[in-house]
Amino acid sequence: MEFKIVDGEQYLDEILEYDMQVSRKFLQFDLTEREYVEAYSAVINKLFSEGKHKFFAAVDEKGRYLGHVWVCITVDTVDYVKIAYIYDIEVKAKGIGIGSALLKKAEEFAKENDARKIVLRVEINNPALDWYKRRGYSERAVIMEKLL
Amino acid sequence: MEFKIVDGEQYLDEILEYDMQVSRKFLQFDLTEREYVEAYSAVINKLFSEGKHKFFAAVDEKGRYLGHVWVCITVDTVDYVKIAYIYDIEVKAKGIGIGSALLKKAEEFAKENDARKIVLRVEINNPALDWYKRRGYSERAVIMEKLL
Repeated sequence: MEFKIVDGEQYLDEILEYDMQVSRKFLQFDLTEREYVEAYSAVINKLFSEGKHKFFAAVDEKGRYLGHVWVCITVDTVDYVKIAYIYDIEVKAKGIGIGSALLKKAEEFAKENDARKIVLRVEINNPALDWYKRRGYSERAVIMEKLL
Repeated sequence: MEFKIVDGEQYLDEILEYDMQVSRKFLQFDLTEREYVEAYSAVINKLFSEGKHKFFAAVDEKGRYLGHVWVCITVDTVDYVKIAYIYDIEVKAKGIGIGSALLKKAEEFAKENDARKIVLRVEINNPALDWYKRRGYSERAVIMEKLL
């Protein structure tokens, strides 16, 4: 399958709809559909309220959505320099290099915006951790939590 | 040494001054003093702009500052529930239980505010990681980065 990377803003509804489905699988609390949709919208609005956001989409030859990356230029809360934070990479059609192409595009965007580093979060035990390591990423910090 | 835990808002200047000193040690980029102070202020203002923030301070019998915890009630961007995020715990006088007392106070505050979990970030190779594990925290995610 052929694909190309394009600006993602025109696919934003589709992107957020797909991300909302995928993100639900990682929830560890029981939320009703309504609670989840409301909380998801609130979180997305919160994230959009800060930083410079950019979406890139992977599309097939007919312009159909195959995946996306969401990157945000912001100031790092630990290193106090301009960074690019990748909020999300999702790929519908696996195994044909879409993820790598999206990541590369996000890194180019980061450099164009004078970011000093690119940062992202990966859940523990997610195979994506090794995928990122093979692409030059290393572990900087751990997010710890305790249920109350 | 005796200590007690009090509301930290009245110590906020001292807390941020101390945190600014400590945080500088973790920087991996060269920033001038002026660049760092400006970036630090911008980050603090950004963090304060969202969520409900609370500080608790540990003080000695004369009311002198010995350490603090900074906790924020917010909505988790991964689990979409109300959580308490610990931005910072700092202790000037080590080894007398101040850190444990501050953490306990933050957890009580989290429960009073109906948070479903308490979350924090620890740098890789920081001995604090085991300190938190002994107190019931477990690893949820990894922050990865790549320098550009």
